[in-house]
Amino acid sequence: MYSFHELADIVQNEIKNLKYPQQPELLYAPIVYSLEEGGKRIRPVALLMACNLFRDEIDCAKPAALAVEVFHNFTLLHDDIMDRSDTRRGKPAVHTRWNDNVAILSGDAMMIYAYKLLCGCDRRVLPQLLETFNETAIGVCEGQQYDMDFESRDDVTVDRYLEMIRLKTGVLLAGALKLGAICAEAQPWQAELLYNFGINVGLAFQLQDDLFDTYGDAAVFGKPIGGDILAGKKTFLLTTALKTADAATRGELLARLHDGGMSAAEKIETVRGIYDRLGVRKITEKAIADYFRNADRILNSLEVGIERIVPLQELGETLLNRKK
Amino acid sequence: MYSFHELADIVQNEIKNLKYPQQPELLYAPIVYSLEEGGKRIRPVALLMACNLFRDEIDCAKPAALAVEVFHNFTLLHDDIMDRSDTRRGKPAVHTRWNDNVAILSGDAMMIYAYKLLCGCDRRVLPQLLETFNETAIGVCEGQQYDMDFESRDDVTVDRYLEMIRLKTGVLLAGALKLGAICAEAQPWQAELLYNFGINVGLAFQLQDDLFDTYGDAAVFGKPIGGDILAGKKTFLLTTALKTADAATRGELLARLHDGGMSAAEKIETVRGIYDRLGVRKITEKAIADYFRNADRILNSLEVGIERIVPLQELGETLLNRKK
Repeated sequence: MYSFHELADIVQNEIKNLKYPQQPELLYAPIVYSLEEGGKRIRPVALLMACNLFRDEIDCAKPAALAVEVFHNFTLLHDDIMDRSDTRRGKPAVHTRWNDNVAILSGDAMMIYAYKLLCGCDRRVLPQLLETFNETAIGVCEGQQYDMDFESRDDVTVDRYLEMIRLKTGVLLAGALKLGAICAEAQPWQAELLYNFGINVGLAFQLQDDLFDTYGDAAVFGKPIGGDILAGKKTFLLTTALKTADAATRGELLARLHDGGMSAAEKIETVRGIYDRLGVRKITEKAIADYFRNADRILNSLEVGIERIVPLQELGETLLNRKK
Repeated sequence: MYSFHELADIVQNEIKNLKYPQQPELLYAPIVYSLEEGGKRIRPVALLMACNLFRDEIDCAKPAALAVEVFHNFTLLHDDIMDRSDTRRGKPAVHTRWNDNVAILSGDAMMIYAYKLLCGCDRRVLPQLLETFNETAIGVCEGQQYDMDFESRDDVTVDRYLEMIRLKTGVLLAGALKLGAICAEAQPWQAELLYNFGINVGLAFQLQDDLFDTYGDAAVFGKPIGGDILAGKKTFLLTTALKTADAATRGELLARLHDGGMSAAEKIETVRGIYDRLGVRKITEKAIADYFRNADRILNSLEVGIERIVPLQELGETLLNRKK
């Protein structure tokens, strides 16, 4: 059985060994650039872990693991254009380093390349792999569209927000796990359970991210605290607050969020004060714990040896980074 | 056996019956919009014709035909952003009707959808179909990148230009034909010949387009004559002229192309005069005739009944539109 770090090394090595044509340079150089380092490789590692639950030999799952990582990096390329994010993992984003056209077309080529890698899997399982991969990929696009839609909407409910992050964050991790199970020729019900494990971990991860953005320790979180509040971003915290509040408090919260006269620190403090009054922090912590408990329960119902689920438990804990 | 028009109707009907989710609207509405009408459906029709060469029953090839048409329209969506083309088939392009982000993300979803359609083909031939589809798709991206590269380069040779249009125009038609042959479970050598038929027809078509842009009849061509000359576009005509000319004429040609002081009509007239002196028109017409003859020879070597190749001959003639 492989540990998290062994699998991360395997993935890193496989990615380094991928070969691309030299020409046209502006098509392929950005692919090398965006895959070369920095990513945590969570999804391909999860895929290999899922395979390793059922099989000692995981070579059969490597092409799918690479496909998922290349696909993930393709989405980052295009998302960074759409979101006008200029840096990625401490480096200029592809559209900043080159330009939008290069990022669009290299991204397209990466998506095709992801499919090409996936097609390296055993043809007996290929149709099932493709079905899951297609559903996953379209789900990620839907999530990105909802995320962009929400920026200009004032009617984002908790349920709509959860559906958006399920698609944007949960589905790719879930799909990766299911692909790993399919590669290992696990039972369909086991592949489905792993998918649900991924959704629960993904949701817990995103809710934790929302929580840290408002209540975290800047040094540990790696970003300034309060960014979501200042951006008026529809998060689990905000949608929960709007759901929980009475009409007067809801009015007060919206007024504070849109108040152009307050300093940044003052706005963060005030909005956090309203969240505190409404118990938003507790509600969020409980939701995270619930998703995490679901995830653990699912792992324990897989009917594999209890020792085999340890790496996936560790992956969940690493992702939730519960020490923060 | 099906005629061109029967197949075009079949494709049109199948496209009309494609179903999409309702939400998120900004992801799916542009897909419906860009597929709804106006396209000539050349590639899916060619794919079905290739299948029909070997089989009377073509239902097995329909998912692949739709995949190719959806993929083609995805490339138009993204190309129109990159080339800043505001209209497509007489309607606003998707990035004009909505915006760049919508066109990027809907395009991504269309590419995934193309793969999803392809996966509807019989699983016995699916790995081969995917291999051809992936190679075709990546070739189209390479062609688009070379095309963009050429805008800022002064060293585009005839050979490089031909390689670019082979990728940008030829490969998708060729790939479509090969996919049709694979669906029909034709012999691999027959599928390869059909691929080469497609490349030759594609090259002939693009060279003819270049010729008409400078020597055509505006009423028939549908665009003003001389656009390529005014844009300084590297076409078969220009690269051939630069190859054929002596140093003095080459210098004269480049000076005229970059001359900001001439009127449009004067520039077109002058450059066309140089082309005439160099025999560029004749060279181009001969190249078109050669590709067309190659294409016809390939069709005749397929070892299918002579009557079965008639629709593909007609397709070639329609594309070359030899009456113009």
